[in-house]
Amino acid sequence: MATGNLDKQKTIDLRKKHVGPSCKVFFSHDPIKIVRARGQYMYNEKDEKYLDCINNVAHVGHCHPDVVEAGAKQMELLNTNSRFLHDNLVLYAQRLQATLPEKLSVCYFVNSGSEANDLALRLAWQYTGHKDIITLENAYHGHVSSLIDISPYKFHQMAVAEPSQHVHVALSPDIYRGKYCEDHPDPATAYAENVKDIIEQAHKKGRKIAAFIAESLQSCGGQVIPPVGYFQKVAQHVRNAGGVFIADEVQVGFGRVGTHFWGFQLQGEDFVPDIVTMGKPIGNGHPMSCYFNTVRRIKKTKHTFGGNPVSCAIGLAVLDVIEKEDLQGNALHIGSYLTQLLDDLKKRHLLVGDVRGRGLFIGLDLVRNRDKRTPATAEAQDVIYRLKEQRILLSADGPHRNVLKFKPPMCFSREDAELVVEKIDQILTDLEKTLGLQMSEAVISENGHTKRKVILQVM
Amino acid sequence: MATGNLDKQKTIDLRKKHVGPSCKVFFSHDPIKIVRARGQYMYNEKDEKYLDCINNVAHVGHCHPDVVEAGAKQMELLNTNSRFLHDNLVLYAQRLQATLPEKLSVCYFVNSGSEANDLALRLAWQYTGHKDIITLENAYHGHVSSLIDISPYKFHQMAVAEPSQHVHVALSPDIYRGKYCEDHPDPATAYAENVKDIIEQAHKKGRKIAAFIAESLQSCGGQVIPPVGYFQKVAQHVRNAGGVFIADEVQVGFGRVGTHFWGFQLQGEDFVPDIVTMGKPIGNGHPMSCYFNTVRRIKKTKHTFGGNPVSCAIGLAVLDVIEKEDLQGNALHIGSYLTQLLDDLKKRHLLVGDVRGRGLFIGLDLVRNRDKRTPATAEAQDVIYRLKEQRILLSADGPHRNVLKFKPPMCFSREDAELVVEKIDQILTDLEKTLGLQMSEAVISENGHTKRKVILQVM
Repeated sequence: MATGNLDKQKTIDLRKKHVGPSCKVFFSHDPIKIVRARGQYMYNEKDEKYLDCINNVAHVGHCHPDVVEAGAKQMELLNTNSRFLHDNLVLYAQRLQATLPEKLSVCYFVNSGSEANDLALRLAWQYTGHKDIITLENAYHGHVSSLIDISPYKFHQMAVAEPSQHVHVALSPDIYRGKYCEDHPDPATAYAENVKDIIEQAHKKGRKIAAFIAESLQSCGGQVIPPVGYFQKVAQHVRNAGGVFIADEVQVGFGRVGTHFWGFQLQGEDFVPDIVTMGKPIGNGHPMSCYFNTVRRIKKTKHTFGGNPVSCAIGLAVLDVIEKEDLQGNALHIGSYLTQLLDDLKKRHLLVGDVRGRGLFIGLDLVRNRDKRTPATAEAQDVIYRLKEQRILLSADGPHRNVLKFKPPMCFSREDAELVVEKIDQILTDLEKTLGLQMSEAVISENGHTKRKVILQVM
Repeated sequence: MATGNLDKQKTIDLRKKHVGPSCKVFFSHDPIKIVRARGQYMYNEKDEKYLDCINNVAHVGHCHPDVVEAGAKQMELLNTNSRFLHDNLVLYAQRLQATLPEKLSVCYFVNSGSEANDLALRLAWQYTGHKDIITLENAYHGHVSSLIDISPYKFHQMAVAEPSQHVHVALSPDIYRGKYCEDHPDPATAYAENVKDIIEQAHKKGRKIAAFIAESLQSCGGQVIPPVGYFQKVAQHVRNAGGVFIADEVQVGFGRVGTHFWGFQLQGEDFVPDIVTMGKPIGNGHPMSCYFNTVRRIKKTKHTFGGNPVSCAIGLAVLDVIEKEDLQGNALHIGSYLTQLLDDLKKRHLLVGDVRGRGLFIGLDLVRNRDKRTPATAEAQDVIYRLKEQRILLSADGPHRNVLKFKPPMCFSREDAELVVEKIDQILTDLEKTLGLQMSEAVISENGHTKRKVILQVM
């Protein structure tokens, strides 16, 4: 079996010949061929090292030896379906449950985040007997049909103008680009009221709400952090309408937000979703996913699923590594440090409109005009291409593709943070020179401690 | 990390506590705890050996060392998504393509058979601009919402009386239990005419056909072998209506049918589906799946997918083992031998209504009355429970759960075949004694070479 031996051009040619064109590569003009990876680093066919700021799937670090060993050992022993009793399945379910509020006690394993979210919808439909789903602007919940229907991020790409009849799109609770911003007295209530309005409109048409679904922090949607209290208020409206609240943790779970193990916990101790879905970081790259619900609210279902002994062995090893290496703590500390470095960038670069994030889930929102918050889409593309030349992997996302998106393996270090920020600093300086954007001396000296109007100078 | 160390009752208790009740175990009264497996054998916590006649997922044998080694080696090196160039992806796509007719040239990788079938539907919808799907009675195509809609096997279980508006259920091309049986002059044409009728009815209502989907041989539906020529005729009707033909090879592909690598090839060299989906045997238990389509007919789509280097390494190793150990040849030879032994059983046991299959995909249809072909559901359950006591794993399936279903790992041997048939022989003898069913001497002496009416004697 050949691995990594083809000439790069040959790999590209074979890919064009055999693999569907919609299976995209990063940096399509000059894609990267990666042959090995370790921790937060990936290596190309010339053994050149790339710093990986994007692969949240390799949650505890690429090819973590403990995870590889657990998977390999179990593969040698047994890999079969969950119709036989096996300790890995039950021990893993028990272990995962322990990270969640007690009410979220019923667990199913499937093979991908998409399968987990599809299952969540089905159970919501069955349990409530209702059909309608409320989703957020720019949301992405997976690539199977039922989820494309509820993923504006996806159905807009596919040039589907209108969502399906049973899908309602609520305002994204984005306090930087949304309808209610940081200057609004109570954006949490205001955004939740929008959900309430949608429910009322639906009821007027004789429709009924089965579920509200949201990522605990919106990822593809542009690294959006919902204001605290928003989920509680939304859940109340949705439950009053007989629906359930689904928190999608596929991108943001497993300690990434630093202060908590799950993203939804950022909303406060009093908030418990009815359903939580988990995805790829769960297996550090191994295809697996999971789903928890509260017994009280959802009982009926019929299926058989994933959760084979190999997946569960890998899942257990991932949890062990997170604990042993205190990766949640690392996400908190390095994430805070990286955020602080990026905040400093904002003080020196007009192109930086907003820095937002929790733990190692951070967005740098680039703008052409700070007052108007005009998305700097082309500039964001420029930044990621130039970073790639410096062997740093970063991506731009959000509805305008202008948000630089940090979600590195959780073993990301201080030095990594300093390196990527130093490079971005240089690139932004260059870009601003070309664009004729410059901070005034006065603004720079203020050092960002007070709220101020930034002065835009065209040279 | 503990593995296989819990007391069996503790495993059961933890499973009840944490895992959803609809994730079923085999033999729910007294489930089996399996801790290791090799080839066609599985071992319980007491190291007692079970002969496995059901796990088609462990296609080349449980824990095949070549497959384990390929997976483990690649896990150590790199496991990331398909947005980077990697040789495993393109080499595997090339290798799989070589097993298919040339027109099926465009490949996508996903994580499960369900994801592959969902993708097939989506592409059919996009390509044709039509919405309606024709599926077969008792079909099962997967567990995500779009597939439950087209799986009568599943939606009947879930007590959904009527299929969705866009789903049409065609007659199962079953020449033993269907509308047109082996005594019909041309069942292939007759069953295909049913599809044509459905299309005409749909057109009258202003509806349009996007696709016809069928397993190349129906598995959960009761090991149904469609008459040769049926697919060609159906494809013609469906293509005339602007739809596409999807062949689901998730259960039956990869050499299992013995004479050919793919089940649809049993229909003849002239038949090429527009879309072929492949599932779990592809990875010998590793969650992966694949999808091929003909470029000419389907082009547009937008997604990102599976096909990570580990999955592809495993997929390549599986293909290597199939070749190296001539497992397709083994399926042909052992399958024929097993079929012959089962045919002999039919000569001695009134409970055996029909023996049908190809290669190592065989059904033994148990009946209480041969003339009326009354399904012997309880007796089939009895057989599988008694086999379990003898440490042989077999299952009963089909709409009446009366078809004993053979789909063992492809390394199944002559001795295995003899053992399972010997045990079934004894069990059927016992059951028939209890039921008062007995062959007349006259019938037994005829030795089954001529077509004859079986005489039923009640003692």
